[in-house]
Amino acid sequence: MKTVCFLSSILFSLISIMANSQKLTTYVNPFVGTKNMGHTFPGATAPFGMVQLSPETNQVPYAMDGKYNPETYRYCSGYQYDDKTIFGFSHTHFSGVGHSDLGDFLVMPTIGKLNLEPGTTEQPGSGYHSRFSKNTEKASPGFYQVFLDDYGIKAELTSSERVGFHRYTFPKSSASHIILDLMSNIYNYDAKNVWTFVRIEDNQTVTGYRETTGWARTRKVFFAMKFSKPFKNYGRKRYEKVEYNGFYRKFNENENFPEFAGRQIRAYFDFDTNEHEQILVKFALSPTSTSGALKNLEAEIPHWDFDKTKKETEAKWEKELSKIEVETLNENDKRTFYTAMYHTMMSPILYQDVDGKYLDIDQNIHNAKDFTNYTIFSLWDTYRALHPLYNIIQQKRNNDFVKSMLSHARHSVHKALPIWSHYANENWCMIGYHAVSVLADAVAKNTTDADLKTMLNASVTSSNLKYYDGIGEYLTYGYVPEDKSSSSVSKTLEYAYDDWCIAQIAEKLGDEKTKSEYLKRSENYKNVYNPKSGFMHPKLSDGTFKTAFDPMDTHGQGFIEGNAFNYGLYVPQNVPEMIKMMGGKNKFSEHLDQIFTTEIADKYIEKNEDITRDGIIGNYVHGNEPGHHIPYLYNWTNDAWKTQEKVRMIMRKMYSDGEDGLCGNDDAGQMSAWYVFSALGFYPVLPGSDEYQFGSPLVKSAKINLENGKTLNIKTENQSEKNVYVSKIFVNGKEIKNHILKHSDIANGGEIVYVMDRKK
Amino acid sequence: MKTVCFLSSILFSLISIMANSQKLTTYVNPFVGTKNMGHTFPGATAPFGMVQLSPETNQVPYAMDGKYNPETYRYCSGYQYDDKTIFGFSHTHFSGVGHSDLGDFLVMPTIGKLNLEPGTTEQPGSGYHSRFSKNTEKASPGFYQVFLDDYGIKAELTSSERVGFHRYTFPKSSASHIILDLMSNIYNYDAKNVWTFVRIEDNQTVTGYRETTGWARTRKVFFAMKFSKPFKNYGRKRYEKVEYNGFYRKFNENENFPEFAGRQIRAYFDFDTNEHEQILVKFALSPTSTSGALKNLEAEIPHWDFDKTKKETEAKWEKELSKIEVETLNENDKRTFYTAMYHTMMSPILYQDVDGKYLDIDQNIHNAKDFTNYTIFSLWDTYRALHPLYNIIQQKRNNDFVKSMLSHARHSVHKALPIWSHYANENWCMIGYHAVSVLADAVAKNTTDADLKTMLNASVTSSNLKYYDGIGEYLTYGYVPEDKSSSSVSKTLEYAYDDWCIAQIAEKLGDEKTKSEYLKRSENYKNVYNPKSGFMHPKLSDGTFKTAFDPMDTHGQGFIEGNAFNYGLYVPQNVPEMIKMMGGKNKFSEHLDQIFTTEIADKYIEKNEDITRDGIIGNYVHGNEPGHHIPYLYNWTNDAWKTQEKVRMIMRKMYSDGEDGLCGNDDAGQMSAWYVFSALGFYPVLPGSDEYQFGSPLVKSAKINLENGKTLNIKTENQSEKNVYVSKIFVNGKEIKNHILKHSDIANGGEIVYVMDRKK
Repeated sequence: MKTVCFLSSILFSLISIMANSQKLTTYVNPFVGTKNMGHTFPGATAPFGMVQLSPETNQVPYAMDGKYNPETYRYCSGYQYDDKTIFGFSHTHFSGVGHSDLGDFLVMPTIGKLNLEPGTTEQPGSGYHSRFSKNTEKASPGFYQVFLDDYGIKAELTSSERVGFHRYTFPKSSASHIILDLMSNIYNYDAKNVWTFVRIEDNQTVTGYRETTGWARTRKVFFAMKFSKPFKNYGRKRYEKVEYNGFYRKFNENENFPEFAGRQIRAYFDFDTNEHEQILVKFALSPTSTSGALKNLEAEIPHWDFDKTKKETEAKWEKELSKIEVETLNENDKRTFYTAMYHTMMSPILYQDVDGKYLDIDQNIHNAKDFTNYTIFSLWDTYRALHPLYNIIQQKRNNDFVKSMLSHARHSVHKALPIWSHYANENWCMIGYHAVSVLADAVAKNTTDADLKTMLNASVTSSNLKYYDGIGEYLTYGYVPEDKSSSSVSKTLEYAYDDWCIAQIAEKLGDEKTKSEYLKRSENYKNVYNPKSGFMHPKLSDGTFKTAFDPMDTHGQGFIEGNAFNYGLYVPQNVPEMIKMMGGKNKFSEHLDQIFTTEIADKYIEKNEDITRDGIIGNYVHGNEPGHHIPYLYNWTNDAWKTQEKVRMIMRKMYSDGEDGLCGNDDAGQMSAWYVFSALGFYPVLPGSDEYQFGSPLVKSAKINLENGKTLNIKTENQSEKNVYVSKIFVNGKEIKNHILKHSDIANGGEIVYVMDRKK
Repeated sequence: MKTVCFLSSILFSLISIMANSQKLTTYVNPFVGTKNMGHTFPGATAPFGMVQLSPETNQVPYAMDGKYNPETYRYCSGYQYDDKTIFGFSHTHFSGVGHSDLGDFLVMPTIGKLNLEPGTTEQPGSGYHSRFSKNTEKASPGFYQVFLDDYGIKAELTSSERVGFHRYTFPKSSASHIILDLMSNIYNYDAKNVWTFVRIEDNQTVTGYRETTGWARTRKVFFAMKFSKPFKNYGRKRYEKVEYNGFYRKFNENENFPEFAGRQIRAYFDFDTNEHEQILVKFALSPTSTSGALKNLEAEIPHWDFDKTKKETEAKWEKELSKIEVETLNENDKRTFYTAMYHTMMSPILYQDVDGKYLDIDQNIHNAKDFTNYTIFSLWDTYRALHPLYNIIQQKRNNDFVKSMLSHARHSVHKALPIWSHYANENWCMIGYHAVSVLADAVAKNTTDADLKTMLNASVTSSNLKYYDGIGEYLTYGYVPEDKSSSSVSKTLEYAYDDWCIAQIAEKLGDEKTKSEYLKRSENYKNVYNPKSGFMHPKLSDGTFKTAFDPMDTHGQGFIEGNAFNYGLYVPQNVPEMIKMMGGKNKFSEHLDQIFTTEIADKYIEKNEDITRDGIIGNYVHGNEPGHHIPYLYNWTNDAWKTQEKVRMIMRKMYSDGEDGLCGNDDAGQMSAWYVFSALGFYPVLPGSDEYQFGSPLVKSAKINLENGKTLNIKTENQSEKNVYVSKIFVNGKEIKNHILKHSDIANGGEIVYVMDRKK
C-alpha cells in the first residue's frame, strides 16, 4: 500500500509545517503532573517568576486528630486534577516538590451573602469555595481560566514575574465580593500563621505582609494589591483567640477600618457589579517590604490591560521555549517535551524587588549588585540534570543561581551553601551538600563569573559542617557509620561525589592541596562497599557491616528514598572503578538488568511518600532521583545498547502529555530536565564534569539556540518509534564511539547526528 | 538667737558652695517613683536612649485564671521598690507610663545547675531569679548595680543610646551561665510573643530579633549581643507546642546549634569563671535589622571599657541636666528637681540606627534625612508641659520629635499624626489628637523648621479622622454626644483645644480660611456646658443633657480619668470665656477652692487605675493629667495668690526625692515636667501659645542655659519655705502684673526676679 504510505507521509509533513508555524507555548500543557503525585500546578506564572498564581482545589489540614494527614502530601502544590472544587487562587506554589509550604494570599471572588469560611470539598456550597466544570478550565503558559459555577464568575489569571493579575467577570449583583484569605496555606496547621499585617491604603489599594512558620521556619511575604475599581465596603474577621488586642478600646475593626493585624485573618472587599462586569486585581509580592511590593507592582504592570500582560508573559515563555526547537515523532511527544521544558522554568524563582533589594538567610535585606537573586533550591534533586540543563539553555540565570547560593553562604550563620533553601530559609531537606555540584558544573562549563576562591571556600565550609547530618563522622571514619547517622550509605556516596566536585573547583583554581584532599575524600564510597554482599552496605562505627541487610529495602538499610540495589550505584565520579569493584562489566550489566526486571514488593515502598508504583520499572525508581543516572550506566559496560533501549522505554512509560504525565514529583524540574536531556539523546551523568553520556534521542531533530548566539543542531537518521538504538553518532562530522559528548561541542555550536536503528 | 542664725547661714552657704561643685547627676535619684504607682525604673539609660536597661523584680502575668491581673499595672516598668527578687535585666522599658509593654531581652547571670525557669517571688530559689539586698542596690544616671545573693554575682549596668552594657562579677564556678530569656515580657501573656529568631554568629556574638503583639500590636526589636569572652557551650529551650518544626529531621537544636527560632525561647551561655572574674555583655538594639544592631554596637561601644561608657553616659546626663542650674531651699528639693529633669529625658526615645535607618508605622524601613527619628509619644500626657519644656531646654530634639510625628503621619494609613505611638505602632491610647498641640507649640515658640503646610495638612487630617473616637459625631453635632461615644465631654473639650492649636498653625501659615474654621471648632466646648448644672455636662445626640449626672464621678459621666469638677475646666484656649460662662471670676474661684477641699469619696476612684489616693488633694487629682493646669487657673480670677499657694503646696505634697516621690504615673515625664516648670515659677497653661502663667517658684534661683547660647536667670528675693506668695515679678527689670511670661522673654535670655512674701 505504497500510496497510502506516501499520502500519510505528505499529511505528516503538512502537519509538521503547520506545527512549525504554531507557537511553542501551545505545546505546553500545564496540567501535566497535576494528577497523582506530580505535584505540579496549572496556574499562571512567568518563567522563573516570583508569583505563581494557581487555584487551590482543596484545603487540607496538616494533621487530623493529632496525626499527620497523608492527604497533605497529595496537595503539595495545592491542586489535584480530579477535584471538583476551587477555594481560590493563591500566589505562591512549589512546582513538583515532595514536601510543601507556601500557598500565600488566597483570593476568591464570590457573590451573595458573604461567607468567609472556606467550607469543605465534602460539602459543596458549605463555604466560599465553588464547584467548577473541568471543561471551562484552561491553562497555558502564563494563563489560567476557570468558570466558578457557584457564583457564575469567570476567573482568569495571568502574571508577570512579581505581579499576579486576576480578571474576574461577575454577574449582576449588589453583593459581589473578593475574599482575601490570609489564613489559607499549603501544609496548613494552626500555628503556621505567625503574623499578618494589612493596610487599606485607599479604596483600591491594599498592602501588607504575612509571616509563616512552615518548612521555611521564619518566612515573610509582603504584598501590594490593587483593584481596578473602588470597593464599596471592606472588612476582616480575626479568627484566633485574642488575649489582648493592643488597640485601646476604640474601633470596630471588623468593618471599614483601614488597618488590621493578627495571626488568623480573612478579609473581604465588596462591590456592586453589572452583568459581565470585570473586576481586575493586581497582586504584587516582595521579599522585603510593602513598599517593595508597591514598586514591583508599578514597575511591572502599571496598566489595567490584562491581555497585554498575558501576551507579554506568553512571549517570555515563547522566548524561553524556543531555546530548543524540536521536531518529534508525533505531536504528543512535542507537547511532552515543551511541557517538560516549561516545568524546568518554574523554579528557582526570582527573589528580589525591581530595585535589587532581597532578603537573605540572615533575615536582613541586602542589595543585589552584580547579580539577580533567586530562591527555591531543591538541590538534592536539581543538581543532577536541571542545573546542567541550565548550563546549556539558561547560562545567565544559572550564573545568578550560583551567585544567589554564594550570597546565601555569605549570610548563613554556618557560612554554608544552601542544602534545600527557599524564601531566605534553609530547610535542610535531604542529604548531601549538592550546591557544590552546581558550582562545579558551572565552573566545568565555564558559565559563571563568580569568584572561584569564594566558591571554593563556601564549598569547603559546607563539606566540613560537622553538626550537619553525619559530616563529623564522615570526616572521622571516612564514611558515615549507620549507628551514628541513619541513611549512612546514601550520605557517604553523595558526600564522596560532592567532594569530587569540590576537587574540580580546586583544580580550576590551581589549589592542588585542596584538590588532592577532596579527591581523596571522593574515594570514600569504597569504604561502604561490602564485597561479601556485593552491595554498598551500611557500615557501623566499629568497622563491621550491618547484619540483617536487605538490599531491596529503603528503610533502615542505610539508604533514603532508594535501596542498595539502585541508590547503591551512586558513584558518578568514578563509574569504571565502581564497576570493577562490583565484579566487572558483565556482572554490573546484569545488576542493572536486575534493577529493571526485579519487581519490587509493595512492602518496600508502602511507607515511602516519594516512591509510588507509577514511577517504578521493576526496581528502577524513576519517580525519584537517586537512580536517574542508572539507565546511562550501561554505557560503561559492553551493553550500551541497553542504555538506549532503557531511556527510550522510560521516556515512553514515565512521561506523557496528559495530566498524569509525571510518574512522581517533578522535583522542582529535575524529572522534566531528565526528559529534556534524554529526548535530545544525552545526559549529564557526572555534573561537575564537561561530559555527557549519549543515550537515545526521542526527537527527530532539535536546534538548540544558545545564549552566545551559536546553534547546536541535533539530527537523526532513521528515527522512529521502534528505531531506539543508535548505531552511529557523529559530532561535527566525527564519529563518536565512547558515548561521550563534550560540553564544548554544545557550547561552540555545531551538529550531532544520530543514526538510529531498530536493532541493537 | 542671732548667732545661731548667722552660723547656720554660713553653714548653708558652705553647703551651697560644695553643692555647686557637685555634679548635677549626683542629685538624681533614679529610684524616685519606683515605689507605688510612679512606674519609673531605676536602670541605666542615656538621655532619650533607645536602650533602657533595668532590673525586672517580678514576672507578672497579664491575666490570672482568665481574668485581668491588677498586679500587671503595678509592674508597668517591671520594677517595684519593695521587691526582694530580681529576675534579670531587660533592655526596654517605659518610664512612668500608665499602661505597659516592652521588657525585651532579659539577661540574667547565674551559677550552678542551669535553671531556665524564672521561678516565682513567692518561692525564692525556685527559678533563675535571685534574691538581693537593698543595700547593694545603687542607681545613678546611666548606671545601676546590685548584688545577686543567690549566685554571689555583682551585676552592674550602664548604657549608651543604643547599646546596653552589662558587667557581671562572678564567683569561681565551672557552671556560670548567662541566660537570655526571650520569653520574658512586661504585660506578659501567652500570645504576646509572636516570633523569635536567634543566630550564634560566633562564640562571643549573638544576633536576632523578637516580634511581640502587645500594646504595640505589630512590634519587632532586633538585637546584637557580644560577650567579652567566648562561651564554652550554649543552647536553648523552646517552650511552645511545636506542631511542625520546619527543619528536616537533622539536629539537636537544643545544644550548640547556631540558629534557633520559635515563639517561646530561652537561651543560655555557659562559662567557666574564676573568683571575681568579670564577664561583660554588650547588647545593642535596632528598629530595623540585626545588621543595624551590629552597626549600632560597633559604632557606640567598640571597646570593652565599661567604666568609659559609664563616664560618657554620665557626662551626657550632666550636660542635659546643666541646662537648668538651680539653687534650692534645701538639698532634697535639688534632688527632687534634678530627678524630675532626669525623668523628662527618659522618653521619647531614639528610634533609628546610627546610619539613619528607622522603622515607621507602615512597617517599612526608611532613611531619616533631615532629622533624627524618635518614638514613644504619650501625647495626651506630654503635650501639656513636657513638650513645652523641651521647647525651652531641648529645642533641637523637640524639632526632631515634631519631624518624627510628621514622618509617622506621612507613613500612616490614616495620614494622621500619632495619638499614642511607640515602636512604629499606634496604640490609640486616650483621647484627643494632641500631636497638633506639640506642633502648634513648636510653631508658637519658633523651635521647628518643619514645613508649615505639611504640619497643617497632617493636623487637619488628624482632626477629621471620622472613625476615630467620636470625631465623626463631633463634626456633625459640634460636640461628641455621650450616647454615640463615651467620655464625650472630655473628648469635646480636648478636640476643641486641639482645634485651637490647628488654628494657630494655620495663622502662622497665613491660611485664614483654615484658621477661621478651626477657631470656630475651638469654641465647641460651649456646646457641652450646661448652665443648669453649672458644669461641662454630657450631652446626647438629641441635644439634651444627660440626666442622672454626678459631677464627682469619673465613670459614665462623660469624662475619662477625671470628673466634671476638674476635667470640666479644660478650656485653656479661652479661660476668660469659660469663667464668664461658669458664672464669673468669684464663682469660678470658689469652684477651684471646692476642688481642693472637697474630699473625693473612695467609690469614685476605686475602679480607676490611673487615679490613686496618693495623687489627690481633695478632688484635685495631681496624679493624672487633666487637672495639671487647674492650680494656675486662679490667675484668671481675683485670687492669683491661690495659684501661688496651691502650686507650692502641690510641689511639697506630691513630689519628693524618695522612691515614693511621685504621686502617680510619671506619664512619660509629664508629671516631672509639671514640677520643673512649677519649681521655676511658671507653667504653660496653653501650649500652642507663646505664653506661660506665673505661679510661685520653689527654687531660690535658676539659670537656664539655652541652646542658642543665651541665658535666662531666675532670681528670687525673700524666698523661703513659708514665703510662697509672689508679691512682685520683674522680667528684665520690668514688673509684670498680668501673670504672663512671654516665651520671647525666655528665648532671648534675660532675668526674672520673683519677690517672695509670706503674705498673699
